[in-house]
Parts: sequence; structure tokens; C-alpha cells
Amino acid sequence: MPTLILVRHGQSQWNLENRFTGWWDVDVTEKGVAEARAAGQLLKEKGVLPTRAFTSVQKRAIKTLHLALEECDRLWIPETKDWRLNERHYGGLTGLNKAETAEKHGEEQVKIWRRSFDVPPPPLEADSEFDLAGDARYAGIDVPNTESLKLTIERVIPYWQEEILPELAKGETVIISAHGNSLRALVKHLSNIPDDEITGLEIPTGQPIVYEFDAELNPGEYYYLKDA
Amino acid sequence: MPTLILVRHGQSQWNLENRFTGWWDVDVTEKGVAEARAAGQLLKEKGVLPTRAFTSVQKRAIKTLHLALEECDRLWIPETKDWRLNERHYGGLTGLNKAETAEKHGEEQVKIWRRSFDVPPPPLEADSEFDLAGDARYAGIDVPNTESLKLTIERVIPYWQEEILPELAKGETVIISAHGNSLRALVKHLSNIPDDEITGLEIPTGQPIVYEFDAELNPGEYYYLKDA
Repeated sequence: MPTLILVRHGQSQWNLENRFTGWWDVDVTEKGVAEARAAGQLLKEKGVLPTRAFTSVQKRAIKTLHLALEECDRLWIPETKDWRLNERHYGGLTGLNKAETAEKHGEEQVKIWRRSFDVPPPPLEADSEFDLAGDARYAGIDVPNTESLKLTIERVIPYWQEEILPELAKGETVIISAHGNSLRALVKHLSNIPDDEITGLEIPTGQPIVYEFDAELNPGEYYYLKDA
Repeated sequence: MPTLILVRHGQSQWNLENRFTGWWDVDVTEKGVAEARAAGQLLKEKGVLPTRAFTSVQKRAIKTLHLALEECDRLWIPETKDWRLNERHYGGLTGLNKAETAEKHGEEQVKIWRRSFDVPPPPLEADSEFDLAGDARYAGIDVPNTESLKLTIERVIPYWQEEILPELAKGETVIISAHGNSLRALVKHLSNIPDDEITGLEIPTGQPIVYEFDAELNPGEYYYLKDA
């Protein structure tokens, strides 16, 4: 039966520093590497072996995928990287830590940006050191300068439907290594979670989440692989 | 202009032990990891940045690719893995070291198998510990049980023409991370090297080799990137 494995990338340097990251290409920490390897070990132990991989174009998700696949001896499976699985773009908050953000914008406002479904943060300024205009990986792509969760969903779900779902329809065991908000988008879609609840759903790093699908491609309830 | 980068995987455990490896999926050593990273550093230094990647389904080539791409910040480029870029299958020699092979078959015979263009070694026996019949990565593929260099060429070059050349035609900078003999196959084809000379061409591990193509997709002479 078609199976979907979701993995949020292992801890990144900016997770550790509590900074908004979004599309900035921050690496995983040593702890993040260990989390990614542990995810792969768990796949191996439980015998849930991916046959097809998808990830974003951000190194923290790509490296997490590669480390996990190495541990379960599946480095050889086909993999596709796409910007539509990227993290939500945090706009002008990119690079700021929580304390700096609260100081600049006020605690209440920060809570709104973090937790609201459709209010994007202020746009990234054009002269920002975090501007991605010259980044070759986004050549020809209309890079957003900020995103709400709603806007993130509007790129993740069409990609899911056009590129990933057809692989599941073939009976593949698909692994997606991605980010807190691109995975929230998928979980919201697959588990019918309302707008006002999904922003509160925390997806832990390096913990494989599994959906099993029936023959009509209806997903069951998701579970954490460690609990299976 | 279209550019091709060939990289032979970094040292593997069986390179170190002087054993015939072929299709057996042996990992890279610490030295191999360092060679792969150095290859990526060189790409970065020389500004020869791949936009498209191909590799085999063998972990020593895949890991070499990933490590090199990480060093030059190109982990995000599309990559395709295919068994037709695998190492030559060494048949019944798989797993033997040079001394054991000479003892079993005689020095002269071993030299013939290593150096002849079209004489394959004896086939791998069906009950060999190195049999790949149950390996999921080769499901649906008619796995050979031995190959000469000629037979290796007969799978590498059609793949080159059907899958890789069209990418160069788009102007991409293609990197191929592969093996001594699958790379020999490509160099023979691109540089018109005669049958009796190609088996003597040694391709060093972790040393990027570059071909630049003109607008009609004719390759120039290859050079080692370190000398550029």
C-alpha cells in the first residue's frame, strides 16, 4: 500500500539560536545530523523503507534526507528537490531572534505573525543581507518576499497533487524531507485540520511521521513511526 | 558553453584493500570522504559550478557527489541516479584481492581480465555472497553476472546519449560522479581513444576532469581541473 513518510529537518544553527530562518539556507548542527541519522535508523528498524524521495532546495532538508537514506541504505532511490517544499518565507523577520523581533515589533505583533493563518510578516527589504535575488537556485522563480502559512499552502499543495501524489498512486513509499511549515501544509491537507488549529501544530525535528493510504489514495490517521 | 565534469568516487574500503569491487556496494573511506570534499572545494575555487548531476546507484559515487556538491554549495541542483553509470561488473572476481586472484587464476590470466577490452572475467556464481538478485535497487533490471569494458561501454554510452547529452545541449554544466570503468567508457567515446589504449588509462579518484563543448556539442580535449 502507498505510504508517506514526513520528516522535518534536524536542528539547524538558527533553530538553535532561535532566529527566524525561512528561505535562508542555514546548515544543520551536529545535533541535527544526529537527529537525521536517528530518523534513518528508525526507518531501518521498523522496515519502512522509502522507494522515492522529495525535498526542498534548502540544505538543511537535503542533508537530513541524505543522512537518513544513508542509514537505511536507500541512498540509491530517485530524489527530487523543489523550492515549493521550502520553509515558509518569513519576510522581514528573517535573521532576527525572538528577543530582537519582540523588541522591534512588540510581543503581541510577533505572536500574530507566528500564529495567524493568513497574515504575512512585513516583506524582506530589497537591500537586506538575506535577499535571494542573485541566488542561482531561484533563477526564473518568482521568489516571494514574505509568506503567511496560507501562501505557503498555496504552493505546497499544488506541488503535492501534481508531483508527489502520482508517485503514491504507483504504490511507492515516499519520503518528504522538508520544513515546519511546508509539512504543516501537508498535514493540514491530509488530516483536514482547520485554519485556526494548524498554526498550533508543532512538528518535531527528525521524527518520521507516517501516513498509510488505501487503494483509493485516502490517507489514514498519521502516526509517529517511533510509536508504531 | 556546455561543460562536463567527470569525477571518480573517492577511495573506497575495497580500493584500499585492493579487492575487485564492481557492483558490490562498498562505502568510501575517510580518505575517500576527504577526496570528495576536496573535489568540491576545487569546483568552488575554479568557479566551475555544476547545474545538473548524474551518478550511479552505488553509494561510493552517490556520497562522493553529495560531499562535492555540499562543498561548492550546489546540493540543490537536480540529480539523477542510474545503474547504467555503475562500475564494470567484475563477475567471479568480486571480493577477491589481487593476491588471491593471482593465486586462484594465475597472474597472466588476471592481467588479461584487467587489461583486455572485451574478455569478461568468469561469471559470478549464483550462490556467491556477492549475488545481487535480491537487491531492491535492481528490481526489474537484467543484472549482468560479469562484464568486459566493452559490455560496460554498451550500457554507458546509450545512457549518455539519451539522458546526459540532452542536458548539455541545454547549456548545463553537468557533473557525473561515477567509477573507473564507467568513466573510461565516457572518455573513450568523447576523446576517440582506441580499444587497445583505453584499458590502460588510469582515472584518479576525486580529481575533476573537464570537457568543454562547442555550440555543435563537439567536445574539446579534456583537462584536469587542478591544472586549469
